[in-house]
Formats: sequence, C-alpha cells, structure tokens
Amino acid sequence: MVSGKMIESGNGPIRLGMVGGGQGAFIGGVHRIAARIDGEFQLVAGALSSSPEKAKASAAELGLDPSRSYGSFQEMAKAESSRADGIEAVSIVTPNHMHWPAAKAFLDAGIHVICDKPLTSNLADAKKLAALVAKSGKVFVLTHNYTGYPMIRQARDMVQKGQLGEIRVVQAEYPQDWLTTKVEDTGAKQAVWRTDPKQSGAGGATGDIGTHAYNLARFVTGLELDSLSADLNAFVKGRLLDDNAHVMLRFKSGAKGMLWASQVAPGNENALKLRVYGTKGGIEWSQEQPNHLWFTPFGEPKQLITRAGAGAGPAAARVSRVPSGHPEGYLEGFATIYAEAARAIRAARRKNGKPAKDVIYPTVADGVEGVAFVEACVKSSKKNAAWTKL
Amino acid sequence: MVSGKMIESGNGPIRLGMVGGGQGAFIGGVHRIAARIDGEFQLVAGALSSSPEKAKASAAELGLDPSRSYGSFQEMAKAESSRADGIEAVSIVTPNHMHWPAAKAFLDAGIHVICDKPLTSNLADAKKLAALVAKSGKVFVLTHNYTGYPMIRQARDMVQKGQLGEIRVVQAEYPQDWLTTKVEDTGAKQAVWRTDPKQSGAGGATGDIGTHAYNLARFVTGLELDSLSADLNAFVKGRLLDDNAHVMLRFKSGAKGMLWASQVAPGNENALKLRVYGTKGGIEWSQEQPNHLWFTPFGEPKQLITRAGAGAGPAAARVSRVPSGHPEGYLEGFATIYAEAARAIRAARRKNGKPAKDVIYPTVADGVEGVAFVEACVKSSKKNAAWTKL
Amino acid sequence: MVSGKMIESGNGPIRLGMVGGGQGAFIGGVHRIAARIDGEFQLVAGALSSSPEKAKASAAELGLDPSRSYGSFQEMAKAESSRADGIEAVSIVTPNHMHWPAAKAFLDAGIHVICDKPLTSNLADAKKLAALVAKSGKVFVLTHNYTGYPMIRQARDMVQKGQLGEIRVVQAEYPQDWLTTKVEDTGAKQAVWRTDPKQSGAGGATGDIGTHAYNLARFVTGLELDSLSADLNAFVKGRLLDDNAHVMLRFKSGAKGMLWASQVAPGNENALKLRVYGTKGGIEWSQEQPNHLWFTPFGEPKQLITRAGAGAGPAAARVSRVPSGHPEGYLEGFATIYAEAARAIRAARRKNGKPAKDVIYPTVADGVEGVAFVEACVKSSKKNAAWTKL
Amino acid sequence: MVSGKMIESGNGPIRLGMVGGGQGAFIGGVHRIAARIDGEFQLVAGALSSSPEKAKASAAELGLDPSRSYGSFQEMAKAESSRADGIEAVSIVTPNHMHWPAAKAFLDAGIHVICDKPLTSNLADAKKLAALVAKSGKVFVLTHNYTGYPMIRQARDMVQKGQLGEIRVVQAEYPQDWLTTKVEDTGAKQAVWRTDPKQSGAGGATGDIGTHAYNLARFVTGLELDSLSADLNAFVKGRLLDDNAHVMLRFKSGAKGMLWASQVAPGNENALKLRVYGTKGGIEWSQEQPNHLWFTPFGEPKQLITRAGAGAGPAAARVSRVPSGHPEGYLEGFATIYAEAARAIRAARRKNGKPAKDVIYPTVADGVEGVAFVEACVKSSKKNAAWTKL
Repeated sequence: MVSGKMIESGNGPIRLGMVGGGQGAFIGGVHRIAARIDGEFQLVAGALSSSPEKAKASAAELGLDPSRSYGSFQEMAKAESSRADGIEAVSIVTPNHMHWPAAKAFLDAGIHVICDKPLTSNLADAKKLAALVAKSGKVFVLTHNYTGYPMIRQARDMVQKGQLGEIRVVQAEYPQDWLTTKVEDTGAKQAVWRTDPKQSGAGGATGDIGTHAYNLARFVTGLELDSLSADLNAFVKGRLLDDNAHVMLRFKSGAKGMLWASQVAPGNENALKLRVYGTKGGIEWSQEQPNHLWFTPFGEPKQLITRAGAGAGPAAARVSRVPSGHPEGYLEGFATIYAEAARAIRAARRKNGKPAKDVIYPTVADGVEGVAFVEACVKSSKKNAAWTKL
Repeated sequence: MVSGKMIESGNGPIRLGMVGGGQGAFIGGVHRIAARIDGEFQLVAGALSSSPEKAKASAAELGLDPSRSYGSFQEMAKAESSRADGIEAVSIVTPNHMHWPAAKAFLDAGIHVICDKPLTSNLADAKKLAALVAKSGKVFVLTHNYTGYPMIRQARDMVQKGQLGEIRVVQAEYPQDWLTTKVEDTGAKQAVWRTDPKQSGAGGATGDIGTHAYNLARFVTGLELDSLSADLNAFVKGRLLDDNAHVMLRFKSGAKGMLWASQVAPGNENALKLRVYGTKGGIEWSQEQPNHLWFTPFGEPKQLITRAGAGAGPAAARVSRVPSGHPEGYLEGFATIYAEAARAIRAARRKNGKPAKDVIYPTVADGVEGVAFVEACVKSSKKNAAWTKL
Repeated sequence: MVSGKMIESGNGPIRLGMVGGGQGAFIGGVHRIAARIDGEFQLVAGALSSSPEKAKASAAELGLDPSRSYGSFQEMAKAESSRADGIEAVSIVTPNHMHWPAAKAFLDAGIHVICDKPLTSNLADAKKLAALVAKSGKVFVLTHNYTGYPMIRQARDMVQKGQLGEIRVVQAEYPQDWLTTKVEDTGAKQAVWRTDPKQSGAGGATGDIGTHAYNLARFVTGLELDSLSADLNAFVKGRLLDDNAHVMLRFKSGAKGMLWASQVAPGNENALKLRVYGTKGGIEWSQEQPNHLWFTPFGEPKQLITRAGAGAGPAAARVSRVPSGHPEGYLEGFATIYAEAARAIRAARRKNGKPAKDVIYPTVADGVEGVAFVEACVKSSKKNAAWTKL
Repeated sequence: MVSGKMIESGNGPIRLGMVGGGQGAFIGGVHRIAARIDGEFQLVAGALSSSPEKAKASAAELGLDPSRSYGSFQEMAKAESSRADGIEAVSIVTPNHMHWPAAKAFLDAGIHVICDKPLTSNLADAKKLAALVAKSGKVFVLTHNYTGYPMIRQARDMVQKGQLGEIRVVQAEYPQDWLTTKVEDTGAKQAVWRTDPKQSGAGGATGDIGTHAYNLARFVTGLELDSLSADLNAFVKGRLLDDNAHVMLRFKSGAKGMLWASQVAPGNENALKLRVYGTKGGIEWSQEQPNHLWFTPFGEPKQLITRAGAGAGPAAARVSRVPSGHPEGYLEGFATIYAEAARAIRAARRKNGKPAKDVIYPTVADGVEGVAFVEACVKSSKKNAAWTKL
C-alpha cells in the first residue's frame, strides 16, 4: 500500500449534457461512469435518444430533471445555452454520422464538446468540424480512450526520451470476434449501426477499432504516416462494411508498420496490442492487461514495468489512482480522458486560460487523421492495396 | 461490443458521510471513487482527519460544504442525525482501532455504516459491534472489496452449483513486498499505522491482507473453519507485528487449506490468489488479472472464463459494467460493494424493506470471523503453531 | 504420471553421415541431438567443415572413425556409397548455397537426404533438386522442424477435421532481435553467412525465418497461396539482406493473412507465433510455449489444450514422448522430424516400401514452395509491394 | 541464433545397463532418452522387467543383444561385472522398494549407479545405501532431474552470489491432478505402485513429488531444515498413501517455508513451482515454463531472465544446448543429470580422478535427506502436525 492522492476537485463539478446514450446503448454508460470517477462532472441534461419515449425513460433512470431531457440535440443546445446554469460541456455518444451535426450545434452554442470516435462518418465532415473547432475556441476532446491508460502514457514518454532509440518497426493490432456471425441480422443494436455505412461511414472494423489501433500507434510513437497499403474484407456474407483489415504502414521517418483489425477472430475479445521496436529497445502492451508494459533494452533482460510500480515514471503516475498491484481498467483509462477534459475546461473558464502543459487528450486533429486513415484504407483496398497517402 | 446496461439510479443518490480519508490517506480516496462509480452516493459530510487543519483542507478539496466538515466523528454523528437532509450512511476509513467507536457513534445515531476491514483491532470490539448492528437494524457493510469482483462471484456460484464437486483443497495467498525494508521508520503513513499494534491490533500482515485472503476463501467455498495452525514472523528487525504468515487450515467438512500472507516477498505487488480444488474440478483466480477465472472440469481442457464472456453466468454479469475484453479492475470491484450497499440501503428506506436475494455484501459477521482469524493466528503462533479454533 | 511408450527401435540404428556442422556451427549440433533422441540413427561419417583442420578436430570430438571423416562431401558420397556399411542417409547442415550441390552428390550416390532449410539459395536450384529427388526415388526430408511440435500436429488435425470451420484469417509471425545491431561485422559465424547473399540467397529474415512461418501456416491450414504483397527492409545500415519483412497474403480459398518476420525486434528471442481463425473457431500457438495450444470454439470459453493432456488427440500423442506437464521443447520437435525420416527410410529398405500414412515430414516440394516464397517476397518488394504469385 | 557448442564426447560412450523400464513403464524411457541426448552413454544390457516375457520383448525392442537381457538384476550384476566389455554404470528405474537391493548388487559389483528418486522406500535402507556408496568409492547419482534445468542452476547461482540477500521465505509446491479419482483401481501401472506402501514406502504424494519440491528448495537456497509440521491426507477413499500434503518448514537460518504437494488438484499437470524471497530480491520459477526465471531486485522492475538469454550467466549456459528462445524441456533437464553423471564417471576412469568443480548432481546424501523428509512428514502428520526434525 502506498499513499493515495486526492484527485477530486473542490471547484464544483462541470455541468455536463449528453447526446445519445439512452437505454440499450453501450458507450453512453461508459462515458457517464468515466465522467463520474474523478468527481469532475455532473450530468444535468440530455437528449438521450432519438425515440422520445426512450429519451424520457432514460432520463428518468438517470435522475435528470425532466425539463432538461430534450427531444433533440438542437433543442438541447438552444435551451441549455440560454440558461444561467446551462451545461458547460456535452458528451456526444451517438452513431458516427451524427457526430458532426451534434458537435456543430453545441460549438455554435458556445459549449465544449467531448465526442466519441471516430470523429465523423466521412472526411468532409471531419474537416468542417476541425475548422469549426478552431474558430470556436472551445475545448474539443475525442475519446480515443486507450490513450488514457497509464502504461500507454509511460510508453509514449519512454519513446520521447529516446529509450527505444530510433523507431524501426510498429506492430498494432485490434482483433475481436463478436461479428464472426451475422449478428446484425438479430437486431443487436451495437452491431446494426456499426455495420451500416449510413451510420458508420466507409469503414467497418477499420473505423470502429482500426482507428483506435492507428491512433494508439501514433500517440505512443509520434510517427507521421507517409502511406498505407490496405487489404479489407467483409468475410461475413452480405455484410456491407469490412470486418477484417490488413494494413501495411510506411512512416515518413522510414519506420515500417503493420496493422490488423478484425471482428471475426474467434477467441479475441478486445485484444488491442501495440508493439514498438527501435534501435535501442522494444516495448509491448496489451489492452486486456493494461497495467503491464514490457520493456526490453536491447541486450538486457525483459522488464515488466507495472502501473505505479518500480520503473514507472511520472507520466504514468500522473494518471494513476491506486497503488501498483491494484489493477486499473478500461473505465479508469476512459475516466482519464474525462479528467484531462476537465482540466482543459477549467482552464478555459479563466480568461485566456490554458491547461498545464502535461494535460494530454486526443484532439479534433487526431480525429481528422483517424477518418482520413479509414478513407485511405478503403481507397487503397479498392485499388488492390495500392500505396495511398492520407 | 455488446449492449451495456444502465446502472445509474434515478431515485436520487444516497447522502454519504466519511470518517477518515483526508489528505495523505490511501483507502479514503478509493472509497470515494467506489461510491461515485455507479452514481448511487453523494458525499456531503466528513470528519476527514483527526487534525483540524487537514480535515478542513481535505473537505475543501472535496468541495464539501464547510459547515458539514466536522472536527470529530462524534460531532458529525450528532449534527448529521439532527438534519433533515443529514447523511443516510457513513463510510469509516480510519485505522482499525477507530472502527468500533466510530461505527458505534453512527449506528447509535441511526445511520447506516460502510466500514473498512478488518472490522476492529480486537475481537472484543468486534463482538460488541456485531451485537450493536443486530440491535440497530441498520445496514452494515464491511468492504472486503475483493468479493465484489465479478469472477469471484462467478467462482462462488460455480462452487454452489457443484461444478467443483466436494471441495478438498483450498490454497489462498496474498503476498506483497512493500514492507521488505523498515519503511515505517521513514514516516510513511500507510506503513506507520499498519505496523503499530495500537492502531492495527494483534495482526500485521495477518490483519491487513491475511483477513482478505481468508474472507475470499470462505466467500467462494462457503466452507467453515474448524481450526488453524499458524507460524507468524516479523522478518524485519524491530517490527512489532507479523510481516509474514504461514497458516494451515482445517475445515469442518474435512477439506484442508493453506494460507500465506506476506509483506516481504519482493516481486509481489498485490498478488492475492485463490485456488480451490474439488472432486470434480478446480478453479484458479488472481487479483492482478481479475477478469479471468480458470476452470478445469477434471479430465477436460482448462477453460479461461472471462468476465462477461462466454462461460460467465448471471452471478458475474450482475456486477459487470462493460463487455468482456474491457478490463474492470480494483475500483470497479470496490464499487460493487458500494452498489450492493446502496441496494440494501434503498431497501431499508422502505418500511420492513429487504434487499433482493441476490444482493451480497460482507457483513459484520464476516468481520467478526476475520478478527477471530487474526487472533487465532497470533494465539496459535505463540503456542508453536498449535491447532487453534476461532 | 501416465505410462510412457517405448519408441526406440530394435531394428538397429540407421547409419548417418553429416555435411557441415563442425565446431562453431549451431544447427549441426541440433541435428545430431535430434538424431539421437529416439535412438533411430547412428552418426558414422562426416564432412564436417570446409576447413580440413576443423573437420578433423570436429570428427574427433564426435568420436568418428578418422577414416570416415572426409575433406569434402563429394569424397564422402563416393567413399560411403562404395562401402557395405556405408551411410544410408546424410544430414546436410551447411549454409544454404551448398544444399543443392551436396544433396545432388548424395542422391546421385543413392543415399537418402535430410536437409536443413531453406531448401536452396535460389529457385532454380530448388527446382532442379525437386526433379532429382523425384527421379532418385530416395527419401528427402527438409527440416522445417516446427512441424514436429505435437501441438502443431494437433492444430493441423483440428483444421482438417473442420473444428475451425472455413479458414478466414491467418496471422503468422517470427520476430527475433539478434541482428538489431550489425553483429555480422563482429565475425559471428551465424550472422556472417545469414547476411551474405552468396551463401543465403536473396532473402535475409525472409529466408531464415520467414520460410519457417510460411511453412507452418501452410502446414497447419493446408491453404494454398494465391499471391503476396511484401515490404522488405534492411534496417541496419550496410546490411545486404532484409532484416524485417512485412507481407500480406491472399490464399486461393479467399482467406487472407499477414506474415511478419524480423531480426531487429528487441525483446523477441525466437517468437514464432501462428494464429488461425475460421468461421467456427480460432487457434493460437507460440513456439516459445510449444506444449500449449489455445482453442476457442466460437461462443465458448477459450480452452488450453496441452500436449498429451485432456483435449489433445492422437495426432499429438503420436509424436509425444512424455506425459503432459513435462515440457517437450525445440529439440524434441526437431527429433520428431528425424523420427519421421527414420520411418520413411526404414520403409524404403523394403522393396516398394512406403511409410505408414500417418508419417508426415516436410518434403522437397515444401522446400521449393519456401524458396519460391522468398523470391516472390523479394520481387514484390522491389516492385513497391505489388501482388506477386509464387 | 547464436553459435552452439559441441557437447558430444569423442572418448566413446559409457556402457550402460538398466534395471526396470520395460514395456508399460514411464520413467525408464525417460532415462534412456536422457542418456542418449548428449551421446555420452550406450545402453548395452538390461534386466528390464520382473516378468521374463516382458523383459525379453522389451530388450528386443531396444535392440539389446539377447544374451545381455537378464532375468534379474542379481544375474545382470554378476554377468556384466565379469565381462571385459561389461557395463560401467547402471540405471535403476524400478519402483522405490527395489532401489536399495538393486543398487547394492551393482555397487558390490563395482558398477556406478544412476538411481531414480526417492532413494529408497524407507530411511533404514537409505542410510545403508549411503554407507555402502561411501565405502564403494563408486559414483552414485540420484535423478532429481529438476536440478538439471538451466534456470534452476541460474537461480542457485544467484542465491549463492547474494543477489537475493538473506533468504526469508521459501514457497515450494508441486500439484498434479492425475490421482483425483481412484485410478489405481483401473490397474494403471503408474498409479498402482505409487499408491502401494509396499512398493512406494510411507509417502504417497510426499514421496513421489514432495521429495522433488523439497530437493529443489534445498538445491536452490542451500538452506538446511530445522523442522517441519505436516498435515497429510488421502482424499480419495480407500487410498493407502497421502495424495495431498501441506507442510510448514522452519530452516536453521531462521527462514520459513511452505510446501504443498498434491495429486488431487484438477487443472494441474506437473506444476512444480519454486519461489524464494530474500532481503534484497525474489525469484520465481515454474517447471512447466522452465526456460524462464523471474527475478525482482527489490525496488526495481521484475526481470524475465531466459535460458541462454540476456541476464543468464555461466551456471545456466554450462547446461544449455540451444540458443535462447528455443525451449529446452523436461528431457533436456533430465539429460543434464546424465551428462553430469558422465563427467563424474569419466573422471572416475582415471586413477584418483575427480570431476571438475562445476559438475553438480544429486547425491546419495540428497537421497537420504529426501527419505528422511518423507518419514518426518508422516511422523508429524500422525502427531497432529507436531514440529518434527528430520
């Protein structure tokens, strides 16, 4: 046992609204827990479903004031921005195609935005959104939640400090198995919209999980992509979007990579894994065992660096809540994105306020990069895996 | 991805106070996060430290109304019980010796109690507390948090359903390494009180972590102890309490067990592990990888049952928040104890209300058993490891 | 403990010669141990080194009759084939470029050949060798040793029995780290010839370990390759052959795959790994933990099938020597290739003799496929990773 | 890949005989493979079974000269010792109760002995055997094979060099599951004699596997036992010997330990595990993953030391055959005992010859210690786990 730290804030929670996330949704509940963990947000308003009945019932379950349960995000943006105690920030947790219109409504209303990934369902929307964020001056946080894991922060810090030397090879993968059969035909909500191009955009596995793997690789290594070669498949007959993606990567630095995303790999639940190898050492990390980072300085024994344990530095400690050996998981990593958002929003409360330098969160630019990645994969795959720039 | 469920309650959060848990504490912050995760509690009052300055500063950091930051738990019990909006429940997160007087004050004031473990610093206090709880009719929850892990619930359910057959052997261990050197001499708060008999009671490792291992073994197997033989050591010179405990167990059913608790085993962070073997099968679980339960039906391949994955049943699903492959950790398991406490407290709000049958939490009786375990270990060890009944 | 079986043969050992494998070599010693493990061979002659002194000294260390230690393989083929007690088989363990001339000499002399991989240093030689083997009627065994692992036999059997359904995705990788620096400049023999195109052929990592990964994928899945897209690199400056290979695979069945071979991935020793996913299930196997095979029937818990343990069938048992839990390793897997070779050679002793149907070993055709794979990778990579047929 | 070394000897193999190990036996085949792996022995004679038919058939399978297949060990000792080319050493692989008479016959005949463990079926025989060995001047090697694993040599070396500091805690365990049901009633040979006090001696699990765990703990730590407290059980009804043993250990140095041996723990194949903790660090090793040794210098990250990899020293390298990442297993570890025996026997061929100082093998004294351990466990358990000296 080591001393814990107090991470709750006494400045009063940030007033938060939510778009999407009603009954039957998955990621909305995750956002709400993430928002609560560190005590920095209070959910006070919602447009929780496009179905009015479901919206109402969901709001009641969450104990929202019925007058702040809205039938549409447009209505909510308007009403909340005109209240003295209106929401300061909104979480957008709808299917992808609604991210852009919803984000626009709230940014236009002067409200900070926390948005699920991928940023939008197409690159044109993504670019418009980036421009609008820049113009608005508002905080925009994209929940590429895996960047909130302490050992991913540690890994990034080690790369930046040169502990791996010059990066040569990046191996990123994100296999799952839940779409091995045509589960979308059973009406399962999570599967239905993720396999529907109108709601998801051009990418299936590529957009849903490939973007996570790509974002994580960039986050940790800091490398910029030159081009990619992608071979996408929809293995399940009749599926409209890819459920398996093989991608080769060429980075501007000369480093090379491979990326595999799959929703049809039986035995894989959420097996995001990142491996990075450089001239001086290598690191390996698996999302399902997130408190562990394997580090091999070339020529020395492999080391197991644990969250908050020996060998873990301030970059990991800054976003840890409990001592080593007490596993932190997916929700804590997600909560770290919210905690960073809170720091940015609190800084924005002050005139010309900027968050501290060590505050890190995925931005709208990361989101544009992700959507560009999806579109480049689709384009490359259609051209027989031709090398394609983002 | 599978559909999530909405676990937040719309009935309004339970008003919570806290005793202990001020700046520099570890477990207080854990309790607060646990209380927030499912949105069932709101912290509104505190007697956060025996130091008035620290209490005040801690309360400010937590955003408590200064008028509800108290100088002592006695004062808090009195004041809060006389408010219409007073706390409904209190979390006691002090060193062990204060559990009994604090719990008594709040039970006497008609306030439900959530108390850290071990229950008290001696068996006499434990028994008095048990009697008082019975008389009070209040909810009393002991935070043996590891019983909140979904795969522990799964394991218990499998034992109850007979999937292991008749239990023969139980192996429980909880090694750590943080007290390998005499860290209490550095003034580290967590080490100082845990190695001080006046604050901790008769057990060192035995009380701090041995009780967890023993509680977990009982929780999963349902076995009752007949007697134990313990060999305790304080390996670090000058340490007043045991930092390593070897215990052999004899259960009333004829099953046998071993229990090892250590704070001086380098390379172990919080390596609580439980293994149970019966006539039909065996299970193995490690706290540092809590989403996994290994199950071997005798004569068949070993199976990896994952939280919310294939093979996991309703007992685990009931206390899961996110799909399989998204690791839940220590804080979520702890939060489940709070969620169960909330269910019990909400039931108690109703006249003659009882929680649903599937609500499970460690009780004051479990706490008495734990303190009796510590005292039996100490007694046995002093008598050259003679077999001792609780 | 379970009963073991007697695998030693009473028919007298097969008389074996060796080309290469003198002092300072690595793989020669491995072949000798492999040949001894099951008692089926006796080494009686050698042309152990191109250096006469080293050949002589090496033969003495091995206890060979000095008169049967030869200065060249040509001399050995001639002399041994004219002895009544001459060798029946020869092991060729030289650098790649010598495989073809040595194999030719012994096949021409009517001697069975066991040859290290890759088959030859170029495809033209490979094809000539295949034609010669066909014409000779002699046994030719290529030591793709990983096909000798019991759990690889098990995996192949499960695929053949349809337990994975239709194969969709194959992930094969073989990372190492021993060439992270320019170790060939230190004169290390193993590195020198492996990075020399004259001795190795066109492939570096591709030839040395990529061929193993490719062979293993084919062996287990039975899939035939349609085409590949390869991006090869020599990351270490001045290195003449690739030390990292990224390859995308398209199989004729419509299945897709990725293959990664690297000698510059710090933290990887010999991390050959194969993962195969089909419509009904998935399997995962790692060479460094060869006694374990992970199998997930879709929708059920992951199973750990162990060599000779529950769930392992006759295909694995046939090539196991000790009970489950007693790890068999690299040398045992290698020995299985020798044991299969022995079965084929003993069958060949009989007129028109054929080995039993369950005797399996890598053939000259597998060798041609491997060399074609290397040349296709090199060709594809030179054409900017264009899809290339073998 | 790194350069291998030549470990075969040119001095001609040692002529070996075998007592026991006929058809249906397990350990005899293991001894034969172990004897062959390094090319140091040649099996030339045997008394392979007490059944004349089985002895004959077994000898034929092994290709022994029929005239050197004997009907009894007495006959064999007499005949072989009178031949000029008689055996130099014998391997005794019978059930325990025959070790003493067989060993006596060969020692009396001036033949070196390699004997399976435990040494004998009772302490009186063990002591007589030790006296006889001393008097005979012959080499006597007990096959506590796990001491042949390279990483166990590494662990021992690290302890001796003080890398763990002063040892405080030893955790040794050896669980299996093959006797979970009353398999001896099915006639399975391995189970029948191991559960028969007349053939095995006073210990069941204690003798068969507990002795291995105890020997390993002593081998690695060098600690001497003061006393033990044992609680033995025969969980399977009607079984005459213990199938589960819980033992607490007190070493003379003040270190403490626990030892668990079980044959009724479903899910455990051969899960021998040793963990040692000292003032400066801890090590952990598992037999089923023998190429790995975990080492944590207190306050630093855990290190994975691999056989022949970075961090492994000469003590491990001396008994390694292949580079790191190429797993060596049970048979190789066993072979190392034979290789050490060969070194001792070759030294003994020289007048007053002694093997080199680094030659290490389990001796008759280790065997006496093991049998004393079994008898002390049984005695302690009968006295309600009273502390008992060996």
